[in-house]
Amino acid sequence: MKNSRVVIVGAGFGGLQAAQCLADSGADVLLIDRNNYHTFIPLLYQVATGQLEPEYIAYPIRTILRRFSCLWNAKETRRHRIPKVQFLMAEVQQVDFSAQIIETDDCVISYDFLVLATGSQTRFLGVPGASEYAFSMRTLEEAIALRNHIFSCFEKAIQESDPSRRQQLLTFAIVGGGPTGVEMVGAFVEMLRGHLRQDYPTIDLGQVRLILVQSGDRLLADFPQKLGIYTYKRLRQLGVEVYLQTRVNQVTLGSVHLQNNQIIPTATVIWTAGLEANSPATSEEVALANKGKLIVHPTLQLLEQLHVYAIGDLAYLEKNGKPLAGIAPEALQQGVTVAQNIKRQLRGKLPKPFSYFNNGRLAIIGCYSGVGKIGAFAFTGFFAWLMWLGVHLVYVPGYRSRLLVLLTWLHTYLLRDRAVRLILSTKNVGIQNSQVLPKPKLDVFQKSR
Amino acid sequence: MKNSRVVIVGAGFGGLQAAQCLADSGADVLLIDRNNYHTFIPLLYQVATGQLEPEYIAYPIRTILRRFSCLWNAKETRRHRIPKVQFLMAEVQQVDFSAQIIETDDCVISYDFLVLATGSQTRFLGVPGASEYAFSMRTLEEAIALRNHIFSCFEKAIQESDPSRRQQLLTFAIVGGGPTGVEMVGAFVEMLRGHLRQDYPTIDLGQVRLILVQSGDRLLADFPQKLGIYTYKRLRQLGVEVYLQTRVNQVTLGSVHLQNNQIIPTATVIWTAGLEANSPATSEEVALANKGKLIVHPTLQLLEQLHVYAIGDLAYLEKNGKPLAGIAPEALQQGVTVAQNIKRQLRGKLPKPFSYFNNGRLAIIGCYSGVGKIGAFAFTGFFAWLMWLGVHLVYVPGYRSRLLVLLTWLHTYLLRDRAVRLILSTKNVGIQNSQVLPKPKLDVFQKSR
Repeated sequence: MKNSRVVIVGAGFGGLQAAQCLADSGADVLLIDRNNYHTFIPLLYQVATGQLEPEYIAYPIRTILRRFSCLWNAKETRRHRIPKVQFLMAEVQQVDFSAQIIETDDCVISYDFLVLATGSQTRFLGVPGASEYAFSMRTLEEAIALRNHIFSCFEKAIQESDPSRRQQLLTFAIVGGGPTGVEMVGAFVEMLRGHLRQDYPTIDLGQVRLILVQSGDRLLADFPQKLGIYTYKRLRQLGVEVYLQTRVNQVTLGSVHLQNNQIIPTATVIWTAGLEANSPATSEEVALANKGKLIVHPTLQLLEQLHVYAIGDLAYLEKNGKPLAGIAPEALQQGVTVAQNIKRQLRGKLPKPFSYFNNGRLAIIGCYSGVGKIGAFAFTGFFAWLMWLGVHLVYVPGYRSRLLVLLTWLHTYLLRDRAVRLILSTKNVGIQNSQVLPKPKLDVFQKSR
Repeated sequence: MKNSRVVIVGAGFGGLQAAQCLADSGADVLLIDRNNYHTFIPLLYQVATGQLEPEYIAYPIRTILRRFSCLWNAKETRRHRIPKVQFLMAEVQQVDFSAQIIETDDCVISYDFLVLATGSQTRFLGVPGASEYAFSMRTLEEAIALRNHIFSCFEKAIQESDPSRRQQLLTFAIVGGGPTGVEMVGAFVEMLRGHLRQDYPTIDLGQVRLILVQSGDRLLADFPQKLGIYTYKRLRQLGVEVYLQTRVNQVTLGSVHLQNNQIIPTATVIWTAGLEANSPATSEEVALANKGKLIVHPTLQLLEQLHVYAIGDLAYLEKNGKPLAGIAPEALQQGVTVAQNIKRQLRGKLPKPFSYFNNGRLAIIGCYSGVGKIGAFAFTGFFAWLMWLGVHLVYVPGYRSRLLVLLTWLHTYLLRDRAVRLILSTKNVGIQNSQVLPKPKLDVFQKSR
């Protein structure tokens, strides 16, 4: 009797967890992703600010799968260790529920059970110019492009003779006061307090403006109020301009327009304000919730397709009447549940509902402070900062990456230096170049006098 | 009385060395480069084969300059440590000798003394299709693009049902039997002997064809004959197909055409066969030698411009009637000489001729063997391999990169694993996709059965 086929689309936290738990299910398991690596999204902002090498937070999927199969039965498979879970690098174009096939750019694959774990993408909320001119930070490529752009701004600022242009290059606007926005702006402050002063001796770093724009009435809305307030105070202390209850009306080539009719000239607008489900095209209609998320049964099955599951940012689930926050632990736990449910279905049993065990929230502000909530216990400051580093270090895939991240963090926090400042491509700086200025006869030497 | 201005164009081995030696000259020194990092070119092939993170062999120039100034006088400058040598990230567009100015894309800079150290670029020798379809490996971007392409070939091969297409994806042709070509093909063999077998269990790695094409009658023509012969034998042992006295007539989208009318279907042609000087546009004519190199006096001054120097791959120099080989030690020594000569001119003295002290040659073949020549002493095998690693490790800029490169090499050679296998962009694979095939109904699962 032929094996059942389980196909998992997306090698994020949820997809990988599901693959690991299904490795010993006896079914044929195939993992599909458009990249050949797993991206550790919570640390993308450290790539964007030149703290971590991109390679440290992106781990080859085939290497991860190798580890599963070895765990599974080291003895038998030591000789040629063929992973139980297979991998296909491909872009899924359409899912055909009735035919039970997945069309990718390269081939067509049939399935008996399907797990959709394609995650989320940036949502620009229809703000004019945002998708064209604002930087997103959801993929490794985007984070690298942003790093290239940020350091190009400093390189251009040091040669810029016109003060207003220079100020524009040294103004960085972050849209969105959630964890990503807060962590990004905090990392920026750390960067400014590091060796940038020696790198750009002729730039007055006091000139650098960091602006955080939040539509809601406080930062970290998902966190207890007191933590949001602490974060606000801390960021103000660190010199960040925080705008609460302020929406962005428009993003242009060289500026950001705020709801309060303020127009801030800036070369860099970083968009962390919204996410939407990154759902694949399907043959039949599926029930959608807010942000394009797929409505699922408590068992994580699609309403219409009981052999198809959705997890992570793709699935719409509620806990105590509130939608889940869309963080890694939720995806990981859903990955386990979906694997168990598929195993149950394989044995002819009924799937069980998913229940999320909330093991708390953590966010890092930077400069040795963070905020956290575990159960009823909310805490702030150095302890939360340290805890954040610890937790994330544990979750970085692979002992090698873990070691390197640890070394790099020690390097950064002991020497206050940034490891990675490479400007690998200047295509994003094109934004700047398009505002052509007459060539000044530049007296570079005078500047440092 | 105003300081003299020395401008150095190019932050390669020669340019950086000159900058370091000029840091304490009392003159105002400006270093210009199109990138904000120094590329350790001898290790680019290890980036292309996924062994080293790109960041390890690319070091921020401003960080290097900081080190100069600290060396220079740590006490005085500890408080704000402004580097004595300044840096400008810009693309030089033209050098105007009569006006003594350099036009960059952003500004215009005047100089009293000029050091041209802009290095070399790939030379496709007018072979049809080579510049369009062959991969070059002279910049970090090119090495990363090649890495992306190589691993994409394996990802595509594993899903390829047509045997001839699959063979094409698994055939890698390296053009040029110099050190770069030899080291590249050797690194490829190491890669195949590593974890690729587990990563692609359904690919028979015996299928992978590695082809090295050399126009001359032996490999490593700059080295003593016996070393070239040893290298040839060793590579044959490792399963590389080596074609001697064979030129490439044409490179197409999916094949390479050899002089002996052989047409080899391949998705990957890596071009290491030729270099030419990467000389900037100049207002007046300058005397050019073979490969567009600038003819210089023995003092490294341009024939026509006694305040302008050329060093490294840009300068044409002979030793014992033979042109220099264009390797790092030559550039480094020329950097020292040019700095001394400029200091002499500043003091109203005459510059002294450059004499190259040849401290030998080394090349690594891979799989624990290499070749080397020091003075009259030529040696091969493990000792040369180890020596190559040691020497290159010493020259990698920055203790941090050095440590990380060491760790990575240990990781590679002890665990036979490749650290970096990320496919960050698939644009180079576009070459493949353009040969559109009908979508096969792929039974991925059958493959490993």
